[in-house]
Amino acid sequence: MSLKLTILGCHSATPRSFAFPTSQFLEINNRYFLIDCGEGTQMQLRKHKIKFSKIKHIFISHLHGDHFYGLIGLISTFGLLNRQTELHVYAPKGIKEIILLLLNISHSRKFFPIEFHEIESKNSEIIFEDKNVIVQTIPLKHRIYTNGFLFIEKPKEKKLNIKEIEKYSEIEICDYHNLKKGKDFIKENGEIIKNNTLTFEPAKPISYAFCSDTAYFPKIVPLIKNVDLLYHETTFLEDNHELAKTTQHSTALQAAKIAQKAEVKKLLIGHYSGRYKNKDDFLQEAQTVFKETELSFEGKEIIIEN
Amino acid sequence: MSLKLTILGCHSATPRSFAFPTSQFLEINNRYFLIDCGEGTQMQLRKHKIKFSKIKHIFISHLHGDHFYGLIGLISTFGLLNRQTELHVYAPKGIKEIILLLLNISHSRKFFPIEFHEIESKNSEIIFEDKNVIVQTIPLKHRIYTNGFLFIEKPKEKKLNIKEIEKYSEIEICDYHNLKKGKDFIKENGEIIKNNTLTFEPAKPISYAFCSDTAYFPKIVPLIKNVDLLYHETTFLEDNHELAKTTQHSTALQAAKIAQKAEVKKLLIGHYSGRYKNKDDFLQEAQTVFKETELSFEGKEIIIEN
Repeated sequence: MSLKLTILGCHSATPRSFAFPTSQFLEINNRYFLIDCGEGTQMQLRKHKIKFSKIKHIFISHLHGDHFYGLIGLISTFGLLNRQTELHVYAPKGIKEIILLLLNISHSRKFFPIEFHEIESKNSEIIFEDKNVIVQTIPLKHRIYTNGFLFIEKPKEKKLNIKEIEKYSEIEICDYHNLKKGKDFIKENGEIIKNNTLTFEPAKPISYAFCSDTAYFPKIVPLIKNVDLLYHETTFLEDNHELAKTTQHSTALQAAKIAQKAEVKKLLIGHYSGRYKNKDDFLQEAQTVFKETELSFEGKEIIIEN
Repeated sequence: MSLKLTILGCHSATPRSFAFPTSQFLEINNRYFLIDCGEGTQMQLRKHKIKFSKIKHIFISHLHGDHFYGLIGLISTFGLLNRQTELHVYAPKGIKEIILLLLNISHSRKFFPIEFHEIESKNSEIIFEDKNVIVQTIPLKHRIYTNGFLFIEKPKEKKLNIKEIEKYSEIEICDYHNLKKGKDFIKENGEIIKNNTLTFEPAKPISYAFCSDTAYFPKIVPLIKNVDLLYHETTFLEDNHELAKTTQHSTALQAAKIAQKAEVKKLLIGHYSGRYKNKDDFLQEAQTVFKETELSFEGKEIIIEN
């Protein structure tokens, strides 16, 4: 499995019983990321049996309450559970002041190190990178400074074609590393065996774009082009087109248009306004433009293999 | 009905799914009070169908997360719902800075007035009073500055003995007000009809003491003497007597001893540590000393008539 996304909450603004605000847990290429952290996220993590120890990197899109009011509670609980591992928080400027003030007022011991990566740039930038995954920001258009996040697997190594390799007794196990990297094999007599005959192409890196909250903003299209999965907010339906504009949110139709322009493989929608009782209306509206659309719901899991 | 207490959450420290931290909703003598506001309180209010419009006064015992991390979300939601009514928040010093910083960082319009009543005194003081109810602090002993709250009905008016009054044609409806206040009736000829013959004694004012979090602290006994209902925290059982001491919490036995010394009518216990699976153990331990003990659980209602 290369990507697994778990929806912990997908409703907008005012939490209700059984309607948790935005939070998602992403596993991609053996890395784990918590994306947004609305009130109650720690309860949702427990409910969906996601181990707290997996959470080392938390990404917050913007500082509206329904996207981060659960962060302080989660950090506080980490402390009570005697966490030692460093935590990285990637969020708009201001997050550090808030969290430190709250920890300080509770006289909380600084149980474990927290590194705050405060984001300020209006341009897309890489905010996380290791040998498995790159994460870069997707600047969005909302009432306050907001970023989506693009998670991309690093290119993988080529796979060995063992059947073909075994034809050459001179190729030893210690040569495999170079073969995986794409190098040709050179025999002692100078003869070259092309890498392509000894290996298969690696699996295509998988990518996930998280875009919430935002008005209809086609400027993001080049950044999210061809991603395997796009989450795009759909607070409203087209019947509230004007309200979407005023509040700088998107309708289901607008999200679908973005997915269509960016030629993504699959669109996942959420961040529904509480005024709509039937979530299927979101699906229907989006599918008039983009067929490969799915609804978020609490506990939903999306798995993508490559 | 004179008092109705609804338990919204009663577990300690680390919220879990189906284990919300401390919050209670109290109706007493036609006044409504929210007591503590752990993470998820707004969801619990919705779940138990408590109208947000009833919440005008919120009391926060102390600034540990499990007692106030739900406050900012609740205030934020009030704003989104376009609340106009003033909100009063009674909490330890520091609460105003936190709430204003959080509202400010979200660029939240100041939708409705909030009056912060910051508490600093180490002595019991009256922090709310109107014609129906008095609320005063109960200074507790915890790791940070903490108050319990004592809610007392104001003395009620005497009740008219209509059967007796009707024997006197000279007593008119306009005299009833004075009779309820306890005044005698003086006939035109100067003859005095004693108030006691025309009225019944009023119902005894009901009182509720909320005490969380605290170490075993018998100093509070005079303040809570004879209350109709005492909520006292019981984070631990006696098997963790020493841990209770270190963390400045109480065992079930200690809570029961306080109830016994204060001769309260009923003891309600809660704020259970997650380490105990069977809550009945708390009840059993407390009842060895104080029989009239009940367990808190989410959604529990206690009604006291007078």
